[in-house]
Amino acid sequence: MDKLIIVKIGGQVIDDESRLSSFLKDFAAIGYKKILVHGGGKLATRLADQLNIPQAMVQGRRITDAETLKIITMVYAGYINKNIVAQLQSQGCNAIGLSGADGNAIQAHKRVHATIDYGFAGDIDSINTHLFQTVLNAGLTPIIAPVTHDGKSQVLNTNADTIAQEIAKWLSKFYETVLVYSFEKPGVLLDVNDETSVINQLGSLDYYELKSNGVIVEGMIPKLDNAFKALESGVSKVVIGKAEEIHQLINGEKGTTISE
Amino acid sequence: MDKLIIVKIGGQVIDDESRLSSFLKDFAAIGYKKILVHGGGKLATRLADQLNIPQAMVQGRRITDAETLKIITMVYAGYINKNIVAQLQSQGCNAIGLSGADGNAIQAHKRVHATIDYGFAGDIDSINTHLFQTVLNAGLTPIIAPVTHDGKSQVLNTNADTIAQEIAKWLSKFYETVLVYSFEKPGVLLDVNDETSVINQLGSLDYYELKSNGVIVEGMIPKLDNAFKALESGVSKVVIGKAEEIHQLINGEKGTTISE
Repeated sequence: MDKLIIVKIGGQVIDDESRLSSFLKDFAAIGYKKILVHGGGKLATRLADQLNIPQAMVQGRRITDAETLKIITMVYAGYINKNIVAQLQSQGCNAIGLSGADGNAIQAHKRVHATIDYGFAGDIDSINTHLFQTVLNAGLTPIIAPVTHDGKSQVLNTNADTIAQEIAKWLSKFYETVLVYSFEKPGVLLDVNDETSVINQLGSLDYYELKSNGVIVEGMIPKLDNAFKALESGVSKVVIGKAEEIHQLINGEKGTTISE
Repeated sequence: MDKLIIVKIGGQVIDDESRLSSFLKDFAAIGYKKILVHGGGKLATRLADQLNIPQAMVQGRRITDAETLKIITMVYAGYINKNIVAQLQSQGCNAIGLSGADGNAIQAHKRVHATIDYGFAGDIDSINTHLFQTVLNAGLTPIIAPVTHDGKSQVLNTNADTIAQEIAKWLSKFYETVLVYSFEKPGVLLDVNDETSVINQLGSLDYYELKSNGVIVEGMIPKLDNAFKALESGVSKVVIGKAEEIHQLINGEKGTTISE
């Protein structure tokens, strides 16, 4: 099987022009088939503020009303996605930006919840593995914006960590798949204030212990849940670490490698 | 050679939700390989107003400063493009949205002008015919936003009529290509106030006469210049007419057919 590297890049790197551009140079140099999934960054929130669109949060999650969805589609699938694609093109990487609607790449449904109306938030139903294979075989590198669709003409806001995990899961049948969650920290930390306390290997038993002890804190938990889900469903390797160290993360020299 | 239909859809249809949705139903039903090029509509101007970004015009053309380019990328390549794609997907048309940066579809350079600085306006250098063929052969329908790139990481604002003409020109080597400029009028009119005065066939000699007599007025001229350029460079047929009559335009039953 061909090797496939799927990289999720987080918001703080996207918000910092020079860090993003240096990350994209490194990403372009990855010598395997590859996919980039990007998050949103603060630009959407800033635009919502400028347009006086109040952002409702329930239990730490943004409620996507119609006006917020419009902003997300503009900023994530438009501005951020096309600027990443244009930068990668200048680095000799033949990038192609896709939302979940494009080529029916990612189909989802509006989230159903007993008590909370999340608005236009999408939970993923399927990844179009045929499309991804066609695009990768054509020598193109998909750049995925965190916007999906329901097949009934509705676009939906979808968490980028989950998109990366689902793409990795579905494509692991066809490729030896490595999933990299890259962000501003050097990995999963034993002490959140000490960047040298990186856990090199994290198994599921250790994870549940560290979680119940309160060592692994809120922001990390959905990322790690996604990481273990990916491993369980056939992804070869999941690594978490610093965007600046993407090649060392892939080689297993840096970051936290997740194991079952 | 396979037949290929390239349709440009104008701003007034994009601004009208129900007209757009009815147009997209008709477009989805076209039984040939097809490409849609869309313009911008008033949403970009409205957003610029809301954000207090002044829109400078010189000789009827918008000057694309950095802030305006950001809005154009958001609205054209993000909001409008993805909503068109999601609607076509719901109609069973496997649409894929592309800016000129995606897959290096359309390369351009920043416009050079002796006296006017147009800002981030792009004039087209090349169409990636290999990419378009790959995408069309995969059964996908490209939906093109009027945003190009210069290969050096800069996205550029580019006229949608010109994009449609250039794509038609470059692809006419590989397909029997029909170019349709669809908008709110039933065709080129002899009397701009009389919708029944459609000119069925317009040759280049008649065009130059009608232009010098002032019968054909400003808005139509760039569209017609593009139409004749397309015909001269190998496009099989160019038709101009109403978005609501797209099938009759393709069949030659309605609108203005351009001839050399």
